[in-house]
Amino acid sequence: MNKKLIRYIIGLLLCLEAAFLLPVLLTDLIYRENCTFSILVTMGLCLAAGVPLVLMKPENKVFSLREGYSTVALGWLIISIFGTVPFVLSGAIPSVIDAFFETVSGFSTTGATILSDVDGMPHALNLWRCMSHWIGGMGVLVFLMAIIPMIGGSSMNLMKAESTGPSVVRIMPTAKKSARWLYIMYISITLMQILILLLTGMNVFDAITITLSTAGTGGFAARTASCAAYTVLQQVIINIFMMIFSINFSAFFLIMQKKFREAFRIEEVRGYLLSYAAITAIIAFTIKDRCDSILDAVQQSAFQTASILTSSGFSTVDYGDWPMLACILLILCMFVGSTSGSTGCGIKFCRILLLLKTIRRELLSYLYPNSVVQVRMDGKKVDDAVIRSVHVYIAAYIFIFFASLCIISLDSFDFLTSFTAITGSLSNIGPGFGLVGPTGNYSGFSVLSKAVLIFDMFAGRLEIFPVLMVLMPRTWKKF
Amino acid sequence: MNKKLIRYIIGLLLCLEAAFLLPVLLTDLIYRENCTFSILVTMGLCLAAGVPLVLMKPENKVFSLREGYSTVALGWLIISIFGTVPFVLSGAIPSVIDAFFETVSGFSTTGATILSDVDGMPHALNLWRCMSHWIGGMGVLVFLMAIIPMIGGSSMNLMKAESTGPSVVRIMPTAKKSARWLYIMYISITLMQILILLLTGMNVFDAITITLSTAGTGGFAARTASCAAYTVLQQVIINIFMMIFSINFSAFFLIMQKKFREAFRIEEVRGYLLSYAAITAIIAFTIKDRCDSILDAVQQSAFQTASILTSSGFSTVDYGDWPMLACILLILCMFVGSTSGSTGCGIKFCRILLLLKTIRRELLSYLYPNSVVQVRMDGKKVDDAVIRSVHVYIAAYIFIFFASLCIISLDSFDFLTSFTAITGSLSNIGPGFGLVGPTGNYSGFSVLSKAVLIFDMFAGRLEIFPVLMVLMPRTWKKF
Repeated sequence: MNKKLIRYIIGLLLCLEAAFLLPVLLTDLIYRENCTFSILVTMGLCLAAGVPLVLMKPENKVFSLREGYSTVALGWLIISIFGTVPFVLSGAIPSVIDAFFETVSGFSTTGATILSDVDGMPHALNLWRCMSHWIGGMGVLVFLMAIIPMIGGSSMNLMKAESTGPSVVRIMPTAKKSARWLYIMYISITLMQILILLLTGMNVFDAITITLSTAGTGGFAARTASCAAYTVLQQVIINIFMMIFSINFSAFFLIMQKKFREAFRIEEVRGYLLSYAAITAIIAFTIKDRCDSILDAVQQSAFQTASILTSSGFSTVDYGDWPMLACILLILCMFVGSTSGSTGCGIKFCRILLLLKTIRRELLSYLYPNSVVQVRMDGKKVDDAVIRSVHVYIAAYIFIFFASLCIISLDSFDFLTSFTAITGSLSNIGPGFGLVGPTGNYSGFSVLSKAVLIFDMFAGRLEIFPVLMVLMPRTWKKF
Repeated sequence: MNKKLIRYIIGLLLCLEAAFLLPVLLTDLIYRENCTFSILVTMGLCLAAGVPLVLMKPENKVFSLREGYSTVALGWLIISIFGTVPFVLSGAIPSVIDAFFETVSGFSTTGATILSDVDGMPHALNLWRCMSHWIGGMGVLVFLMAIIPMIGGSSMNLMKAESTGPSVVRIMPTAKKSARWLYIMYISITLMQILILLLTGMNVFDAITITLSTAGTGGFAARTASCAAYTVLQQVIINIFMMIFSINFSAFFLIMQKKFREAFRIEEVRGYLLSYAAITAIIAFTIKDRCDSILDAVQQSAFQTASILTSSGFSTVDYGDWPMLACILLILCMFVGSTSGSTGCGIKFCRILLLLKTIRRELLSYLYPNSVVQVRMDGKKVDDAVIRSVHVYIAAYIFIFFASLCIISLDSFDFLTSFTAITGSLSNIGPGFGLVGPTGNYSGFSVLSKAVLIFDMFAGRLEIFPVLMVLMPRTWKKF
């Protein structure tokens, strides 16, 4: 294990975090809400810890999968620890575990909150909450790869460890170029959303914060009322951008190259959009009697389905009151999640598709025991290693799910609350149902339960294996 | 597809069902509760349909996996349809869907009931309910193989389709000899339990019915109060036999050969017993304040854990009132189920073990990308096809689970009730939590929901693939 390399990258991450805190500092200088000192201290701590690590340059810069996974898991843990400092120091969230929960929820793009009064938070810290979504959405190490020239051609394993989905998006020949392209797209679409929201008359602070959360498919809003604070038009715009950010960025690459047909041919994207339309229609039908009109029902259903499916977790209404079928469909969406190669989380639509295809293959192999049936995706044969990793991923997801459920059941909340709190954390949605529904929050859980949920949020965003790997003692042994 | 062979076997099954109805007829002649006519009509129908099918003998008696699966799925459906007749004709369960639900619940060893007053049922029909558990437990086709000489050496695929677990128990060189040995053991242990219960002073009818249900790990009791109607000593005896019937019968084969060490070395059995002990201990700890003594808590916990883990579904108390941790552990047990090659259902302990081992292998393959890591069980390498089928099984289980959950959520019951009704059916436990808990029953569901639950009970007992296969149009096409 090349520990020097890991230390070096973590040093770079901390310096980057200090840089990310600059706009937060600026916001506090504008609004003057007494957070300047705590933000400055955090920046100082990041630099004090980061700069010495960067100065000890490693000789060997080749990333194996094990270094990639370990760097990602440790790097995310460390930036979350430092990101907690402003909340605690400023007194906005006095409890350390609550502040850490909120920060991890931010970076992991979960959006689960322990705050009951978001409106009362200082503007700078609300910006920091939403920025952490944006940083976590596309991945902080991918950002590092895009801007730092030193991490060169051997960093695909780093990108693989941080990207979502069973296989990494290979748009460009090198990881570095892919990373740069991804961030250019990410920043462009982010700016576009801010601009459009400003045109609808939204104030600058709200437009920036809600866009950062939408881009990272996070779920934090700078308002206690979440997206119910905005107009229907603004909700529709946020709805559209949630869907855009949850679509495999390969599709945008094809669209940029004017390969529209190929872009629409990506099976995962097509299946995802069709499922979204179908679930929206069914839920709209179940809630039509509670709404002002059919159009209103469709809008509410489309927003809420997108919010859960993309793993954002915004809300415009208390969907916990909806009919049971609507609730079950939303819970199902919590597991499924968005597409791979996007900023969305959850199990990912392409894994679900692959599972269905392997069930079909298994049945066919019983019917025709002498012939080999292949699993194909987008016309290409899917590698057995990918199928195996998808199956193992599902198995690991289930084990972590039930182990977590057992531990948090010590808090004796009802089944729906406990069940969806775990789903909401492990799929990085944020809100669930019951006490953790859109009108509730996670503050009622014990410290032990919060620790479990923090673990689940990390495991969900980093797709389990990196987190399990750093916990294996064998990872840290020499070859 | 050799349809003649399938028809022939189904004919044999129907004749066998007529024979199984003889003791039921005898019981009604003893108790004189006006069921004689309906039982005789059912026997007549079974023979009228079965004998002509048996007379058209097929030329080719070789079973491919596809014939094995189709025969099992269709055979079970047809004996369930005929088994429904006595309940409807006698007027004991006037609704056809309810009677069919009860019969499928019997043959699939689920034990989910729509009856609120079991004590009021005629003795003959209560015997038929419990007998259906016994018949379904070890498998009716395995029974046929054990007694009919015609289905010879090529019937391993038939046995494979009906047995529980990812690979068939190969005790003897041929399927026929294995089937015979399994039934000799099954009958011997059944008789032993009846005898011991009689010695404790239980009346003959109760001893026979509760033993038949215990043997099939079913869950029907001839009493509304389930096992709360019996003494603590009798409960302990039932507890021990539930565990015996849920253990891989290979272990008994080794014990019969005095290979005690090998029997205890079977990883699945060891892990299963250890988990049982651990869960019993934890639940006993959580309920100790509600019980008269520690011993009482251990006895109640041991009984209830065994009842759920073995997929029986008896109850001595309303465990729905227990602390949330105990409930979650029991729900977990509902999924896990017992060991393969036993009469128990659920996902099976050996599949869970294999899943854990594949997660470990996946992580190791990332750590050491150049070496091949094998999955081993009982010291032997596990075939890749078995691992693949285990993974696909889990995937199919999850899909059926969520699809069922969506449909039954139309009934608008609470989440816990809907969730555990599906688990209870798909894992063939019977009772769940909430409205389908030990003090409730399944009568409140709509016809559509009952149809879904019936499908789930079949799918659970036959381990999904046979049921999915008969639904594929391709299965019925010619090669």
